[in-house]
Formats: sequence, structure tokens, C-alpha cells
Amino acid sequence: MPDIHALFWPRHVALIGAAADLESLRGRIMHTMAGHPFQGQIYPVTRSHAEVMGRKAYASIDALPEAPQLAVLIIPAQYIPQELERCGRAGVKAAVVLSSGFAEAGGGDGSLLQADIRRIAARYDMAVIGPNAEGFANIAAALCPTFSPALEPSARPLSPGPPQRGQVTVLAQSGGIGFSFFDHGRAKELAFRYIVTTGNEACLETMDIAEYALDEGKTEALIVLLEDVKNPHTLRRVAEKALRAGVPIITAKIGRSEAGVRAAASHTAALAGSYQAYRAMFDRYGLIEGHDIDEMIDLASAMIAWRGRLPAGRRVAICTASGGGGGWMADACAAAGLEVPILDADTRARIDRHLPAYGTSQNPVDATAQAVHRIGYAGLARLVMDAPGIDGLIVVITARSPKNLEKQQAELARLARETTKPILLWSYTLPAPQSTKILSDAGYPLSTDIRNCARAFAAMADYRALRSAFLRPIDVVSRPTPASATARARLAAADRVLCEWEARPVLAAYGIGALPAASLVHSAAAAAAAAAAIGAPVALKIQSPEILHKTEAGGVKLNLASPEEVAPAYEALIAAANRNAPSARLRGVLVQAMAPPGLEMILGIKRDATFGPLLLVGLGGVNVEHFKDVVLAPVPLAPDAARGLLKRLTGASLLTAYRGSPPCDVDALVDVMVRLAALAHDFADEIAEIDLNPVIVHAEGNGLSVVDALVVKPQA
Amino acid sequence: MPDIHALFWPRHVALIGAAADLESLRGRIMHTMAGHPFQGQIYPVTRSHAEVMGRKAYASIDALPEAPQLAVLIIPAQYIPQELERCGRAGVKAAVVLSSGFAEAGGGDGSLLQADIRRIAARYDMAVIGPNAEGFANIAAALCPTFSPALEPSARPLSPGPPQRGQVTVLAQSGGIGFSFFDHGRAKELAFRYIVTTGNEACLETMDIAEYALDEGKTEALIVLLEDVKNPHTLRRVAEKALRAGVPIITAKIGRSEAGVRAAASHTAALAGSYQAYRAMFDRYGLIEGHDIDEMIDLASAMIAWRGRLPAGRRVAICTASGGGGGWMADACAAAGLEVPILDADTRARIDRHLPAYGTSQNPVDATAQAVHRIGYAGLARLVMDAPGIDGLIVVITARSPKNLEKQQAELARLARETTKPILLWSYTLPAPQSTKILSDAGYPLSTDIRNCARAFAAMADYRALRSAFLRPIDVVSRPTPASATARARLAAADRVLCEWEARPVLAAYGIGALPAASLVHSAAAAAAAAAAIGAPVALKIQSPEILHKTEAGGVKLNLASPEEVAPAYEALIAAANRNAPSARLRGVLVQAMAPPGLEMILGIKRDATFGPLLLVGLGGVNVEHFKDVVLAPVPLAPDAARGLLKRLTGASLLTAYRGSPPCDVDALVDVMVRLAALAHDFADEIAEIDLNPVIVHAEGNGLSVVDALVVKPQA
Repeated sequence: MPDIHALFWPRHVALIGAAADLESLRGRIMHTMAGHPFQGQIYPVTRSHAEVMGRKAYASIDALPEAPQLAVLIIPAQYIPQELERCGRAGVKAAVVLSSGFAEAGGGDGSLLQADIRRIAARYDMAVIGPNAEGFANIAAALCPTFSPALEPSARPLSPGPPQRGQVTVLAQSGGIGFSFFDHGRAKELAFRYIVTTGNEACLETMDIAEYALDEGKTEALIVLLEDVKNPHTLRRVAEKALRAGVPIITAKIGRSEAGVRAAASHTAALAGSYQAYRAMFDRYGLIEGHDIDEMIDLASAMIAWRGRLPAGRRVAICTASGGGGGWMADACAAAGLEVPILDADTRARIDRHLPAYGTSQNPVDATAQAVHRIGYAGLARLVMDAPGIDGLIVVITARSPKNLEKQQAELARLARETTKPILLWSYTLPAPQSTKILSDAGYPLSTDIRNCARAFAAMADYRALRSAFLRPIDVVSRPTPASATARARLAAADRVLCEWEARPVLAAYGIGALPAASLVHSAAAAAAAAAAIGAPVALKIQSPEILHKTEAGGVKLNLASPEEVAPAYEALIAAANRNAPSARLRGVLVQAMAPPGLEMILGIKRDATFGPLLLVGLGGVNVEHFKDVVLAPVPLAPDAARGLLKRLTGASLLTAYRGSPPCDVDALVDVMVRLAALAHDFADEIAEIDLNPVIVHAEGNGLSVVDALVVKPQA
Repeated sequence: MPDIHALFWPRHVALIGAAADLESLRGRIMHTMAGHPFQGQIYPVTRSHAEVMGRKAYASIDALPEAPQLAVLIIPAQYIPQELERCGRAGVKAAVVLSSGFAEAGGGDGSLLQADIRRIAARYDMAVIGPNAEGFANIAAALCPTFSPALEPSARPLSPGPPQRGQVTVLAQSGGIGFSFFDHGRAKELAFRYIVTTGNEACLETMDIAEYALDEGKTEALIVLLEDVKNPHTLRRVAEKALRAGVPIITAKIGRSEAGVRAAASHTAALAGSYQAYRAMFDRYGLIEGHDIDEMIDLASAMIAWRGRLPAGRRVAICTASGGGGGWMADACAAAGLEVPILDADTRARIDRHLPAYGTSQNPVDATAQAVHRIGYAGLARLVMDAPGIDGLIVVITARSPKNLEKQQAELARLARETTKPILLWSYTLPAPQSTKILSDAGYPLSTDIRNCARAFAAMADYRALRSAFLRPIDVVSRPTPASATARARLAAADRVLCEWEARPVLAAYGIGALPAASLVHSAAAAAAAAAAIGAPVALKIQSPEILHKTEAGGVKLNLASPEEVAPAYEALIAAANRNAPSARLRGVLVQAMAPPGLEMILGIKRDATFGPLLLVGLGGVNVEHFKDVVLAPVPLAPDAARGLLKRLTGASLLTAYRGSPPCDVDALVDVMVRLAALAHDFADEIAEIDLNPVIVHAEGNGLSVVDALVVKPQA
């Protein structure tokens, strides 16, 4: 890995393509870089001028008095390779390529030029960002090699200043959106460490930068706009590292819709993986998904402000002087999946002493303007925060006028230091900028969107719960080596499609043996004999790698109640197969015991182009078709994670209470999920798809029946 | 109805309780009222001072040189009745009671005082707002009888000024939230007509004010924060009137959650109806539900800006210079239920002529910063807006710096005047206030929240579609009078619970006859005979007003295949009933033909405390229990509305394609829904609940079977 530290913390910087014309990007970047108090030298490199904005210009990187660690290139695409090469030779350790006209242009030349960049960067082991990037800002170093208007020099400092706040790092391929997080966050007094926009990512990807920021240890939250992930292993490693470190990743994935995929693919030459697979990754590693810039800023602000004091649960107390505001917040909390329980009697008595008759201490605590005027927001929060039944507070405030908040600032700051439970603020009035600053200085982020505030609380609670589970010792998934060898041999010997009879031993090698008793037969007489041996009722199922939809092809007969019915059914099955799929190779007919009744589910493995195998579990039959109630998870899967996955099904309650039936055997289901995930993990390259459909889950203690199975190997 | 015009458009106003102390509410309201250019006289009334803020004060309303039309009262609660009485005698036509300490205080005295207000207002036919209100603002008249800080006099005008914009009226019980809409909307250059906060609503309700605003005809959108609705008929009438007039009602309902209901109930003495019932009303009359202040402002702004040019469908073209921004917006549109189709070849060719190689015309149209710099946002929009396959545009812009937008303003304004399709703007950067003004003056609302922008487009399309359907001539629901008389007689004669046998004639009177053939019997022999007459298989069902859950009580036997099985089954049923419900009165046993198979659904009538009877339809069996897939609608119901209701079921596709079965007989289902709704409407006071569960819907042309029925009358 090249030296990313040289990229962000160079002693000196060269700007190749510098110009003085403020109407041009070249001039704007020079102006921006020079306008912030970066401590090192900024060397303009250009053949057109002897001087740029009062600084001596150099004709070439070779001509500089000393080799800079970082070169920023903003020259036409076709000249980039030769200049980058020159930089490498001169000992430059890092580069930002801002120019466009590479892979995103969709033509052949651009892609070749981009390959050149990659090659040269590798040769000199340079840390290269871009091409087609908008650059970055290192706020701590006041280094801003970008033409983003958001970083234009102004009277406003880049950072909120003291007291020290936790810092957020923003990563995006898109320059416009990347820097807009800074724009929005700055207005909310959020402190930034790096804003990095990576464009086409010929060399470094957002996740490489994320890993650098995590290793550096100065970033307390990451905001990541994901367009594509070229290296899913890095994403996984970074996500794990971040979760371990307690640095939340707040992310938005572009390409959740077909049109979004189109857009992402065209503009940064990205190949977006399936959103379903991303969701599965996010859920596993606690990435927090946002759907709007301000929402993500609010999420980051809350997570940073209450780092180390995240809520232990989802129970919120709402404090308000506006009855309407409190009620609305209660609804917003409920919509975000939070609880707003009635407070305990002791707490209520304590609060009631301070309220007029028309206030209420139940929760929302509507203290009335009168009481809040007297005891302040901090005083109100203190009355509530020790209530045993709550995990944190949301205080509804009006931050329109800073005057009132100024008086309360010291008390609010003391509360922020002392509280063990997080306190979020929502202002229903539009806050004055000074109000936001007063509250931020006191230690509180301020939401102006009621949904964002409630969501931030829920996200904090979820993150803490997921992280605790993640840090607990993991149950070992047993995968005996001989099993793996057996499965490997069976898979190698098979054609591309393994029908049920062929899939059984592969599954059995991993301990998935809950398939009903069966025999493969090749004549009507053998079918009848097998049925007699198995015992009625039985099912007959055609076995052919070319007949995947057996029912539609007349290849299934169910509930044959007596051996006498079996022989004609066999003949009918063969006839139907010959009629409907004359060229299909028939492996025989499976005679199988009918499974006892239970809850119909589906289990499977799908392979995502980016993330590889994912376990799929869903409610079967009607539900999967019409309610699309399925969830996915990366493999392998620990039993706890499998159990958690089942809870995310909309119809999860079917597993515990189905029309007065006893609860389903969830343990058995979890066991098969874990085994199937282990199989898929071990054979990530050898198995493209597994379908266990349906899986009939019986009552507790009675296990389940895998009623049909199919394994598909990848296309050669 | 008292004269609301006198409330909002008085020639002169008295402020009873006026004071000069700016720290007090009395002083603040005086300061606010006097600080705006209201044309009439503002008379301070107080016994404590001879003069208030430079104006001569009067000891009593009687002492004024002329009777004002409006009195604003801010004196302790206990003095309100006598002063209001004095106002009435003096000829005052309207009053705003700002004081607290009435019904919201939860005590007896407050409620008595509130009743006094109601009585006095009625006696003098005064239009009274409050008590416990924060007052109102008539922006057009610069009349601001409120102590809300949002209306404090400042250099900023109350209205955006020319060009003339459509005006929004805000209605809320909550003062804090009500005026916060003004706060947020003003920052977005939205023009307001009235902001009215009604507090406890002793006399006038938000819906009365809404009706006034609609009749006046100057309001183009209503923002309504609903806490409770005291008179559902007014809500219904107002909603219909607004829909007819094309004035959208953008609403948030407080009390969607249990805690929200608690909050609403305590703070304005409100009784919140069930949120489900509100949702049904909103869906019927096109009320647009918002969940955040800014979101509602964006919804109102969009609806006003594109009034008369709402999108004909849900197909959006996205224009952008930021690839990341365009992709993100595409995802946001998809999440809001919009389509982002690939543009037609002609349009693409027209666009492509203006794009560099790394742009794309597919949709999102990523024109690149370079092209947008050249042709401007308006130029870009013009290339796209005539595309045949789209219903409107969303342009992704950066409104950070007003300089760039200023140059484009004239061109943007011309586009806004000429386009026949709506154009929404989303800025990913934080807009300068001047940018918002430039765009607003040009005719465009500006969203800074990506979700809100996409949502606004979807809401515009939905509103137009719903309104078109609403304005089409309605199919008449036939309700022959004799039917009604029959049903009435049957209902009157029955006990509180009508079991299936008793419910059948009531349903039949309204043409709901699709109940399988059945006989009520009282002996095993009669049961066997009935079964033979009906033909096997049959079901036996115990009939008792005390046994509502028949299956659980052993009161049902299904699929009795031959008459021989019937007699013992009868005996078993009676035995089980005697064992499980020894005190239940048995009406007999129903012998009934088994219904042929089909899709299991439920139909019913529920009575909401506020809105009365609502029709409920849902997917039956497992689905209703575990997926809670039911929808509600007010009654009566036209066939089109019934059809639309079915489409809103999550599992709606079951009706048209269930595992290769032919489509269900939706016409038959719609017919029964319409008839059931008519019955519920005609007997709104006589029927508390109807359950038709299950209703088995057969294949097209084969109707349906109502397999069980129950009617419950209200508690006496």
C-alpha cells in the first residue's frame, strides 16, 4: 500500500497546471490552496507564467527547489501520464489527479490513459487519488487541493474552534456531493478531519482512505457516499475495523434503483453491486444508512457527541415546552422504532413539583413555556435523565433566538459533561447560526428535521447493540475438514446443475440431512417398490438437470396415498417430461416421503457480483411471491446472526405463533442456516446458487424438512 | 357560523391586557402588533397605564372611541368571561383568547371557564379563537395579534414581495409549531396568507378557519397540523371542498403513536381519533401527509408553484451536472415511487449534441459541469422537457453562490412561465439566502433535502390523479329503500350480537347473498337431513351470540364428506359448546355447504370514535395475522374507490396471480365492498362492527363465498 500519509500530510505541494485566472478551475484551485493557512510551500508549476498569484512558478516538477511530497495535477488528460511519470522520478510520493477524460468518458483512449495512471502509480508506489476527482481537504492541516467552492477561502474558519470536538471524515467518489457534506456540516458546527473525493478511483479507493483514517485514530465518524466497491474484501475489513474501534460509518449507497445504477455506472465508471447485497453487508457490520445530506450530518453529529455514551436501549424521554412539538416528536420516535414509555412515579413526582397544572410529566414531559423559562432546558433535562426506565432524552427546543440560549449555555455544557445518557435536541423554529454555535460549544448537536433527530437516537441505540453483539466472543461454526472434502468431490464430479438427488450428498456433508427419505428409481415397478418401502404417502419428482421448474413441466406428483397409485404416476411423469422437455437428460424419478405439515419457508444461497455468496431466507409459498419477505446476510453466519436475521422478516411472528399451532422449531432452522452458510462460504467459487425450496419447519423439537434442493455451479 | 371575516380583517383592534414590558407576553404582543404596518387602530386596554408604547390606553373596551371588530385578550383566565361578555355587549365581532388555564389545565375550574367562553361567544355570535392559543397573523393585512417570536418586527418584510406568489395558510392548534411553519417557510421565500393557531378550540376549530380560507379563494395551499378533530363532518366537507377547488391540504397528524396520543390529549384537551381512521380520510380526500416542518413547506411550495400544471404521471427526468447527485436523486425518486425512465432516442440525440463524451443523456441526464456552465440549468431543462415519455423534471443544482444563478434568472423565469411540465430543484450545496430568493422570484421552490424534493414530485402526481378521479361523475351506489327497511327491522329485532344465521338476512337486504347454502338445525337428525339436501361436503357451525370464537370453542366441524358423519359431528359440537361455554344461549347449528377454494380475504366494518364506520379489507388467514395487510376507507364507497383500495394492499398481486391460478373475481369483491359500505353508511348508528371472515374469492366469473359473518350492534 502506498503512503497515504504523504498524500494528506505533505510538507510541500506542487500544483501542476496552476493559473491565475479565477474564472478557470486552475485558478480557483490555486486561490483556494493559497487562501488557507497551510504551513508548507505551495509551488505553482506551469510553462505559461513566471509567477502565479504572487508566487514564483516553475516550468516543471524537476525545477522545484525541493521535491514536494504531493503533486496536484490539473492539466489535460493526455498529458497526465507523462507528468505523473515525471513526478515519480522526482520523488513525489502522492498525487491528486483532478482532470477528466478518463474511463468515465466511455471511450477507449480514456480507459487506456487511466490504465497508464495505475501503472505509473504502482511503479513509483505513489498514493494517487483520481482521475476525475475534485480533490480533498485536510482541515487539520488547512490543506485544500480542490476547486470545490465549499472550500473557497472566507472569513469563517474551517473548524468550529474550541472546545475541541470529535472529527468526521467524509469520503465520496462524487466531488459535488462529497464537499456538500462539508457545506452542510459546517453550518451545523460539525468538525471535519478530511473530505476526500476520489473520482474514478484508478488507484486508491474510498475504503483505502477509510482504513488510513481509522488507523490514524483521529476520526470519530466516517461519512461515506458509496457508488461502487471495487474490492469487497477491503470494505469488509474496514467495516470490521471501524466497528471494533467504535467509529460509525454513515453511508449512502448510490444505485439502489435501476436508474441510480445507470447513473453511477456512467459517471465514475463504476460497477454497482446489487443493493440487496450492500444492505446485507451494512446490517452485518453496523453501517448506518442515510438518505439525505442533512440526515447524515445529524447522524454523524449525534454519534460523535455521544461517543462512549450511546443509549443502552430504545426508550426515550421527550422534554418539551411546546405540547404540539412534544406530541409530534413522540410520533416521530415511534416511527423510528423508539419507545416513549410513561415515566416512573418517583420521577413524575419530582417533575410535577416544577410544573403548572396544565403541564404533564407523563412522557412526553410537557413542562410548558412557563416552567422552562424558570428552570431552563438543562434544569428540565436533569429532572428526567435519571428516570430508571429510559435510555436517553430528546429535548424539543426553540433555537430561533440565541439570547435565551446564551444564558443557559454554561448549565447546558455542565449537563453535557455530566450526563451518562445521551441528549438530542430538536428545534422546531429555524435556529440562528449563533444558536447552533452556542449549543455545539456546549456539547450538543442540533437537529432541525424532526425525523432526523428521532432517527439519530434510534441509530445510536442500534449501533451500540450491534457493536456489543459483535464484540462478544463468536460461536464457532463447526466445519469438519472431511465434510468439505466429500462435498468437494461430489461437486467436482457433477454437471453444472445438481438436481435434488445429486445435491443431497453435498448438503449431507455439511450436516444438512433433513431431507425426507427417498429413492431414485428408473422404472414404474421400482417406484412402486420404493413407495412401499418408504411408506405412503409419497411424492414422485422427475430428476433432470434440464428441468428446473418441475411442477410446471408436469414433473411432480404429490400425496400418492398408496403404492398402487405410484406406478401409473411414474409413467405419467416420464411421459410429461418427454413431452415438455424432450431433450432433457433424465436422471430418474425420486420417490420421496411426504413431509409432515409445518411452516413453509425458503432457504438459499445467491452469489452477488461484488460480495460473493449471500444466504437468503424467507417465508415461502404465497409470502415469497407476493410479499417478497426475504432477507439476506453475508456468509459465514453465526447462530446469533442467523436468529437476528429471522427477526427481520416482516412475517417473523409466523415462526412463533401460527394460528394456534405450537411455535416452529427455530433452533433447527438456525442450525440449517448456519450449515448452509458454512457450505456457501467454503465453496464461494464453486457454487453459484443453492435453493432449498420449500423448507417445511415443524413444531419445536420436531425439526424441519428440506422438501426440494438444487445446487448450481458457476458458468465455466 | 360567526363572522370569521371580522376576526381576520377588522378595521380596528383592541388588545385587552396590553403592557409595555417587553419581557412579558403582554408587552411582546403589543410590540409585535404595533411593529407591523397594519392600517387600522390598535387600542391598548388596561387599567394599569394611561399609555402603552406611545399609544393612549383605555381602562375598558367600553371606553374606546369606537367599537373595534376584534378584541385580543391576554389577561388571567378567571377574568376572561367577564371581559368577553363586555366585548360582546360593546359590539365586538371577534376575539382571540391567548390566556392559558382552561381545559388544558385538567382541573374543573378551567373547563368551566372554557364552557363560559363558548356560551358567551354563542350569545353574541362572536368568532372566537382560543383559549390557550398563540394568536394569528394575517400577513396580507400586516395584522399580527400574537406573541410568537416568529412575528417579531424586523427589517425583513413579512412577504417575499413581487412577483406575486400563491399564498399558503397555516392552521394549527399548537402555537409553537404553527408559527414555526412561517419561520421555515419565510426562509424559503414562501408567501403566507394566514397563520392561525387555535389552542383549545373552545369555539372555532382549525377546519372552520380552513373553510373560511377556501371560501375566500386567496389560499392556494393549506398546511394543517391536526391534533384532534372535534367535528368530523366539517373535516369531510372541508376536505371535499378543498379537493374540488384544487387547494391541497398538507397535513401532519399528531397522535400516530400511543405517546403522541397521550401528548395531544394532555396539551390541548384533545381527543384524538384512531390514526388508521385519519389515514383512511386522508387517502379518500387527497390530504397530503407530511412528517417534518421543512418537508411540509417543500410540499406546499411545490404544489403552489406548479398549480394547474401538476404532473400527469410519475415519470421524472433528472438533469444534473453532478453525476453523484443525479444518481442519488434517481434513488430518491425510486424510493418515492417515481419512475426515472430512459429517454427516447430523439430527445437523447438532441441532448447529446451539447454534452462532452463523459456526459450521458440516458436519465439521469448527467450533462457535466462543463455543459451546464455553457447552456445553464434552463438550457438543459429545455433540452429534456419535451421528451414524450416524461411528466416533469427534477434539476439537481448547486445554489451555494447566488452569482451564477443571478445570470440565469431571466432565462429560468422564462422557462417557468413557458413549461407545461413541473420542474423541481434540489440543491446539494447549502443555498445562500439570496440564491433561494433568485430562484423563488423566477418561479421555483428550492429543496435542500433530497427526500423532500422527490416526495414533492410524487405528491403532486398523486394529487392530480386523485383529484381527476374525484371530479369524474361518481357511479351511483344503489340502495333501494325497501332493502334498508328490511335490514332495519331485522337489526331492531336482534340482540346485540347477530351470529351468522341472523346476519344473513341483514346482508341479503343489501344484495350480499354470496353465503353458501345453509340451514339452521336443532337436532342431529335434522342436521343429517339438511346435509343430504345441501349435498356433501358440509360444515357445521354452532350459532350463539355468546360464542364469537367458534373454532377455539370446538364449535366448528369442516369438510364433513358424507351425511353419515354429520349426526355425530352435531352431537360433538353441542357437547363442546356445553362444556366450553355452559351459559351460552345456543341458537342452533348451521349446516352449510363447503365453499369451493379460492383466495382467502377478510371484509369488515369498524367504527372509529371520531369518523364513524370504516370499511376494512385485507388478505385473510395467515396474511392478516402476521403481515397485517389490511386497508381502511370511509363509507360509502364507489366502485372505483373500492378498486383503488384493493391496489393498496401489499399483497395486491395475489388477486391477479396466485401460483398460476386464474385471476380472482375482483368485480365480485368490489361489488360486495360497495354494498357492505352502503349498509354501514345507512346504519352508521345502529351497527358497531361487521366481520365477514373469511371471504373466499374465486376465479374470475365465479364470484366469491362469504364463509362466515357476524354483525355487532353498539353497546346500548
